[in-house]
This record gives sequence, C-alpha cells and structure tokens, in this order.
Amino acid sequence: MSLETVSETRSHGGVQGVYRHASTSTNTDMVYSVFVPPQVALGRPLPVLWYLSGLTCTHANVTEKGEFRAACAEQGIIFVAPDTSPRGPDVPDDPEGLWDFGQGAGFYLDATEEPWSRHFNMATYIVDELPLLIAEHFPADMMRQGITGHSMGGHGALTLALRNPGLFRSVSAFAPIVAPGLVPWGRKALRHYLGELGPAWRQHDTVALIEDGARVGELLVDVGEADPFLEKELRPELLESACDLAGIDLTLRRHAGYDHSYYFISTFMADHVRWHAQRLAG
Amino acid sequence: MSLETVSETRSHGGVQGVYRHASTSTNTDMVYSVFVPPQVALGRPLPVLWYLSGLTCTHANVTEKGEFRAACAEQGIIFVAPDTSPRGPDVPDDPEGLWDFGQGAGFYLDATEEPWSRHFNMATYIVDELPLLIAEHFPADMMRQGITGHSMGGHGALTLALRNPGLFRSVSAFAPIVAPGLVPWGRKALRHYLGELGPAWRQHDTVALIEDGARVGELLVDVGEADPFLEKELRPELLESACDLAGIDLTLRRHAGYDHSYYFISTFMADHVRWHAQRLAG
Repeated sequence: MSLETVSETRSHGGVQGVYRHASTSTNTDMVYSVFVPPQVALGRPLPVLWYLSGLTCTHANVTEKGEFRAACAEQGIIFVAPDTSPRGPDVPDDPEGLWDFGQGAGFYLDATEEPWSRHFNMATYIVDELPLLIAEHFPADMMRQGITGHSMGGHGALTLALRNPGLFRSVSAFAPIVAPGLVPWGRKALRHYLGELGPAWRQHDTVALIEDGARVGELLVDVGEADPFLEKELRPELLESACDLAGIDLTLRRHAGYDHSYYFISTFMADHVRWHAQRLAG
Repeated sequence: MSLETVSETRSHGGVQGVYRHASTSTNTDMVYSVFVPPQVALGRPLPVLWYLSGLTCTHANVTEKGEFRAACAEQGIIFVAPDTSPRGPDVPDDPEGLWDFGQGAGFYLDATEEPWSRHFNMATYIVDELPLLIAEHFPADMMRQGITGHSMGGHGALTLALRNPGLFRSVSAFAPIVAPGLVPWGRKALRHYLGELGPAWRQHDTVALIEDGARVGELLVDVGEADPFLEKELRPELLESACDLAGIDLTLRRHAGYDHSYYFISTFMADHVRWHAQRLAG
C-alpha cells in the first residue's frame, strides 16, 4: 500500500511524521501521524501505542499538544495517531451542522445505516487497514500493540480492545465516553450510524460489552474532576461498577481541578506511555 | 494595574493562565500567558523564566506546543510568555503585507520612527511594564529572573539581557537572530523601527552589543542544523566568534537534523528550564 509523506520532522531524538493514504475502509484519503523514537537505531522492531482522538480532533491535536514524544523516546515506543473520521466534500456530515457528529466524530465503529455506511468505517480502518500500513512502513512489532485515547477516542480504545480480544496487550483512556448508549453524544452517534436503539448498540458501548462478557485484563483511566462533560457524557462511575462486577482490574484516577483539554491529557500522558511500555516490554 | 483573566487551567500540578491588560507601553491591549508551578503552595516567591517568541507567534504557540510545564513543575519555575508585538486594527502593519514585520514582529525594541513609535515599544513593555504586573499578581521573586526565546525572541532575550546588566541572572536562546543588522529579517525591521542604518542599530544587535562591550556571564544557545534559516538569518557563527573574542562563556549546541519549529524547541525546552533553574536557585 502506498503512503504519501506529508512531513517528517526531527524531534526528541526521533522522527515525527505525518502521512496520507487512500483508505479502502473509508473510501477517502486519510491522514495520520507516527512518532518513531530513537531506539529504531537498535534495529529491532518496537512496540506500538495507538492514540485515538476525541470529537472534532484530527491527528494534529495530540501531535502538537499531547507531550508524548519525550516519554516515547525514553521508552522506545512508536506512537500512532489516526484521524477521527473520514473527511471531504463528498463525505456526509451532521445534518444539524453541529460538531458532535459526522466529520470529526466517527466513533470508531463501522456504520450500517445510509448515508454513513459508505465512508464511516473507522473500526475496520483502525483495526484492520491502518495496522497493515504501519507494519509495512515502520519498524513496528505488531505483536506488541497498546491502545489509548481521549473522550470519544477513549471510547474507541476501550471498545476496540474489548471487541478484539488479544489484539492489544495494554489499554488505557483519558476521560473516555464509557456508555454511549446512555449519554447525549453517544445516543446521537449510535442512532445515525447504527439505526434506532437495538442490540447493535451494545457492541459499541464499553459498559454494555463488559456486562455482556467481553474482557480486558486491566485498565488505566484518568479523568479530571473539573471536566465539564464528566457527569453528563463520560460517567466514569458506570465503568467503575461494570469493572467491579466483572472483576476487571481498573485503575481509575480522579484528578481534582483538571478539565477535558490537552492541559489535562499532557499532564498524564507520560504516565500512560510508561504504563503501556511496561506491559509491552519483552 | 488591573488584569483580566482570559483563562486559568490546571496542568502539571500547577495553573496555566492567560491574561489581558491595557498596556501603557504599546497603547493597546496585550495578552500573555503565565504558568505557576505547584511549588506555589510552599508559600515562598518563585524564580521567573521569560520566554520571548518568534516572528508571527503570540503567547499561544509556546503555551500549547512548548512542553515547558513538566520541567517548570519539576523545578519550581514561573514561566511567562508575552506576545511578540502590539496588535489591533489601529496598529500599523507591514506595508508589503508580509509576515516578517509589523504585527507579530516587534523585535523587542522601542521604535523611534513614525508610524511605529506610538505602539511598537516592546523593550519597555518587556523590561519595565510587564514585570510590575507579574510582581503584583503572581508569587514571583523578581530578583531571580531568567530569559530565553526563539528566533526573533532569541534576539529579544539576548539583546534585552545585554542592554540591562544584572536584570536577568540567566540567559539562553533557541535558534536566535544574533546579528539583525546583517540579515534580511533584521535589516527590514531595524530600518522601519529605527530609521536608516546608524548607531541605533548596534543597540539592538547581539553581536554588535558584545563588540561594543556589553556582557553577560554565560549563554546557552541551541540551533538545529536543518533549520532553513540558519545560514541566511540566524548565523550562530557570528555569535560564536563575538563571544570568543569577548570571553563570554557560550555553550552553542548544533543539533543534527533539527529544524526551526516547535518540534525542535520542545525537544530541548526541558534542558533550558533546568539550566535556568540551576542559575536561579537560592
């Protein structure tokens, strides 16, 4: 598969790249970023940490503001940041003209409803298509993948890990949407992409997946107590009780004073990178 | 002096703030950012590191992409990032409509020529006005100030330190313009702000100031060898020979593969913060 290099820039001893390719999952061009740390010089394949971004974001937000490179350079981790949805003039968008659905809001699932199903296939894109491209073009050990994400991207990280047992050795999230079937952002997206409330919704809902028997070994989740979306959209207490019932080892950290922004994410990014690195070692 | 809080956000255990005030130096509103680290809780005034930004930037570039907060939180440093010029519809701008002069390009001097002299007084703003505001509103020890900056802001850090002996205990720069009287960006700015080539130019030119006897104790300067502006605009070799002749202890680090961007700055930011912290301690 061919890859167009948008930019490659030296940073923290490694290379921060941005790439574009024609995606067969989304039927659009897709852009993503990859940081390759200095340990590439050792000649051995390196573990990969996926970072899925939140509503309205592209690869660029975390690439510019995420402060992951120092920790990835320290730990020898390749960091991949995909876009959050297909984009372009031919891609349908929110009929209400809002920012919480459509372009920038793919919710990391494969849509089954028209007109979304032609382009909005982010689950296939993240789990099947992009990893092949990463494996082909970067010194990545695809047996050692971890995944994390923020908000809608935290939802993506958790649901994709639960739906694909064994694919990701380590899973974490920043301020994730954990019960999209119960909250406004999620209900709007699931209704459009998957049709009215039904069994399909539970396949893309972290709490429902856990209730229905899906498992991951352990989870690290950070939330800010001053996050304006905490009570209405994120509802970490639902994840806490689902993990408790299911026996999943959840470390849920509530940080006083922190909000939903990259000022929050960047504060705890190095913790997450090191947590994944420990679990992806060897 | 009154201060309007634009935003205050928890990050890295401290608070990243953005503030606006009516400046008597520039006769405009000015916006700047301040990071106050967690050590504020100890109740003692903390050292201050000024960061002067480069052409086209505002306070926001380094605040979002500079990756200084982790190191400032570790070292107990207050980090202040001013804007690069006055701005607004009443402020004159580059007659050619380019980005390298006028708004976003104040060059950290007080203009003497019309129509610039009414607003473009960034030297007075940075050295006299803003420190009073910082001292009044933040837990800052103004006897312990360091200064750094990038590109045009590196020029600002070096010239303001050389022109104000003893004001800054520590001085460093990222990819600074060191001889504005000899390079295109600098000549354009000095001609407009100060009039045709004459003695005034040497007062705002690092290499000329050193040649004319101004001194700082030591300097840390980082440049990227893949910086597209290195040979034509930055010319670090001129700083090297001036410091050599003057007996100034210059540590000039040339980094293979690095460019002029925040991918370069953020890589070495923690080094600079720690270097300043050592010299501002106690």
